[in-house]
Amino acid sequence: MKFKGRDIISIKDLAREEIDYILETTRAMEPVAKSGSDILRGKMLATLFFEPSTRTRLSFESAMHKLGGSAIGFAEAEVASVKKGENLADTVRVVEKYADIIALRHPLEGAARLAAEFAEVPIINAGSGAEEHPTQALLDLYTIWNELGKIDGLNIALVGDLRYGRTVHSLAYALSLCDVKLHLVSPESLRMRREVLDTIKDRIKVTEKRTIEEILPRLDVLYITRIQKERFPDAAEYAKVRGSYQVDLNLLEKAKEDMIILHPLPRIDEIAAEVDNTSHARYFQQVWNGIVTRMTLLALILGAIK
Amino acid sequence: MKFKGRDIISIKDLAREEIDYILETTRAMEPVAKSGSDILRGKMLATLFFEPSTRTRLSFESAMHKLGGSAIGFAEAEVASVKKGENLADTVRVVEKYADIIALRHPLEGAARLAAEFAEVPIINAGSGAEEHPTQALLDLYTIWNELGKIDGLNIALVGDLRYGRTVHSLAYALSLCDVKLHLVSPESLRMRREVLDTIKDRIKVTEKRTIEEILPRLDVLYITRIQKERFPDAAEYAKVRGSYQVDLNLLEKAKEDMIILHPLPRIDEIAAEVDNTSHARYFQQVWNGIVTRMTLLALILGAIK
Amino acid sequence: MKFKGRDIISIKDLAREEIDYILETTRAMEPVAKSGSDILRGKMLATLFFEPSTRTRLSFESAMHKLGGSAIGFAEAEVASVKKGENLADTVRVVEKYADIIALRHPLEGAARLAAEFAEVPIINAGSGAEEHPTQALLDLYTIWNELGKIDGLNIALVGDLRYGRTVHSLAYALSLCDVKLHLVSPESLRMRREVLDTIKDRIKVTEKRTIEEILPRLDVLYITRIQKERFPDAAEYAKVRGSYQVDLNLLEKAKEDMIILHPLPRIDEIAAEVDNTSHARYFQQVWNGIVTRMTLLALILGAIK
Repeated sequence: MKFKGRDIISIKDLAREEIDYILETTRAMEPVAKSGSDILRGKMLATLFFEPSTRTRLSFESAMHKLGGSAIGFAEAEVASVKKGENLADTVRVVEKYADIIALRHPLEGAARLAAEFAEVPIINAGSGAEEHPTQALLDLYTIWNELGKIDGLNIALVGDLRYGRTVHSLAYALSLCDVKLHLVSPESLRMRREVLDTIKDRIKVTEKRTIEEILPRLDVLYITRIQKERFPDAAEYAKVRGSYQVDLNLLEKAKEDMIILHPLPRIDEIAAEVDNTSHARYFQQVWNGIVTRMTLLALILGAIK
Repeated sequence: MKFKGRDIISIKDLAREEIDYILETTRAMEPVAKSGSDILRGKMLATLFFEPSTRTRLSFESAMHKLGGSAIGFAEAEVASVKKGENLADTVRVVEKYADIIALRHPLEGAARLAAEFAEVPIINAGSGAEEHPTQALLDLYTIWNELGKIDGLNIALVGDLRYGRTVHSLAYALSLCDVKLHLVSPESLRMRREVLDTIKDRIKVTEKRTIEEILPRLDVLYITRIQKERFPDAAEYAKVRGSYQVDLNLLEKAKEDMIILHPLPRIDEIAAEVDNTSHARYFQQVWNGIVTRMTLLALILGAIK
Repeated sequence: MKFKGRDIISIKDLAREEIDYILETTRAMEPVAKSGSDILRGKMLATLFFEPSTRTRLSFESAMHKLGGSAIGFAEAEVASVKKGENLADTVRVVEKYADIIALRHPLEGAARLAAEFAEVPIINAGSGAEEHPTQALLDLYTIWNELGKIDGLNIALVGDLRYGRTVHSLAYALSLCDVKLHLVSPESLRMRREVLDTIKDRIKVTEKRTIEEILPRLDVLYITRIQKERFPDAAEYAKVRGSYQVDLNLLEKAKEDMIILHPLPRIDEIAAEVDNTSHARYFQQVWNGIVTRMTLLALILGAIK
């Protein structure tokens, strides 16, 4: 298994064995995440965020610092050199002189792939367009695997905005490499994109539902997402679907005792605050797992571990 | 005296003995501030500034770096996850995964207290609303104590905007724990808030004045603040009081030789440039003291010193 | 040769021997830039960017980190304390408490000089107004010297916006200390500023041209700059001159085989993408050289090397 020098652009670039290897390596990274380490001392991460995302940026920076490395970057909506008219290829070829690895967030699909073609240093896609967010998918998988002891055989529901949410696209692809039953719950207007659906249906059993209730009693994992206002072309359409799905104590009465609830955060009102203290809630644990997963990726790609 | 793991939300949470202990520990920290240290190596500070404040943020970051730790954070007026609708409790529960301690600046009163209730890591209030700024009060106290050798027995004037300035609220509370004579000098419209005044009047002698001149010859400490335009509900009101109080060489002729002038900065025209080179000026010294005080708090709260 | 504690405000402050010394020291710094070092451990750089410039800021931060130091700073268009009305002298006297050295970018000419007069720590001018950008000039010189083995005796063209581009002003001054033939190529409206031209004409042979073609076959160095839209008082004027000069493969047929092309970046359409893979292109190498040059300056000024 070779990760050194590799780009992480799409979850589709990773084979099942590679994903499993990342999960196992992440578990071994847990104590390091608590104690700190110096294995990336002298290494530099550049976080290039052309779209704001405080938490993903801080997660990468925290991961880098925990391994003894440094981080520089920008998180401005309008970057100076881009305002001056620079193209992404040039920006990447400049920034790679400053850093050993680049984490890139970009509003356009395909941006990370393009960057990787021009860059000599490895590129990690930290979210591009509505398409891909591979490190989020990996931390989601790690959370499921680490909490429930396995992925294969589980009943997993993805709930909410399955059309514009890049998180669920990357996660659905990853889960289609596993032996799971996938339940897609969304309003009609936010159904999972055709191209994603076609690919995963070839591999695993997928059902589409309109309500959580229909499927809840069977679920091992309830993965719910924010209806992302900023992804909607139309405000009226947003108003209609917002709040369609809300998880509260009442709903959870019909859930299995060991069902876990995941959410990529931020949440608005998809999960009631009363759920936070139940044994189902794992969405803040996901945040921690995100750091550990990213530490693992940084260490693997920079060749500090194998 | 136990500081490890503690939140610093309000100056009112600290007893006089605790404040004295912080001052003495800060003095012992002075050489460390010059030489640097590694006692917080591997520790991470998150600076969450929901309201811009370059100097307070840089002061915390500098303090953390001088102790060998790292800092991440944001300082954007509009934070991505908040724009997406996230509440403060969630933001704090996410960010605490990235960091060992959080310094929070927020435009709303009570925000730091709320954050501390949800956070498992310690929260330092780096300014909330017009109410509290406890680390500024501590560095102010340290400056007075370090420069004049004592606090008890002094005549201290707080001048300027005593209504909207959070700095003077925290400092007035802190001074009310000491045996000082406090003189509050402000225009009528910017008098010290009732609730602050009531509390401190129970403990120490307080006079209210309209001009510096009335009280100047007796003063050991002249603490002057900016009339904060952004705190005024009404621009006309601001125009009226701006420039009411200005310290220049002419005024200082009536001051004691060893009276010191403090200012939380930034200043607009409250202190003439000609005063900068006099032996009275201590406002840039305060900036340095701010780093040393914050180093002390970080080291105490994170348990690196006792 | 004394660099410790010195400000770098203008390229005019440096003698030829000092520039040569910096170039030689930069070459010795190259392996350190690759391996990393700890010679600035415990030292802090503050990057104060009152004007956005992602690449220059990241270059300074990367240089500081590569030497084991830390960096803090701001890069906001509107800085909090400045919005509150603070003047530059106060900002600098505050920030110098946080840092051992300051890199300052400011939209106004003379800002760096003013800052240096008030600061006790060394100031590096990271670009002020349309006037000066001394570290860019030094990295340009280093690139020429390192790539061609010498500076004296070369034919060098500066092409594009010679009126508003601060880079070419600093570089032209620096080159006038060397025995070069300088060719200035620009549209009439963007000719080199009178005051720069007068100074350099006293020292070296200077010709002014309207097209690259007239001079191309003789050139050892073609230094082309972006027509900076934001420096134009008039949009119509910008539209007229934009694209006047474009380097492509067709043009390069008439160039010497070992002629090098430099550009301070970002570029818009001054250099066609097809040129990137030719042996002439050195503009991405310049980015790397910028880090190494800034490492050298930081180490010299902070007294870590001599």
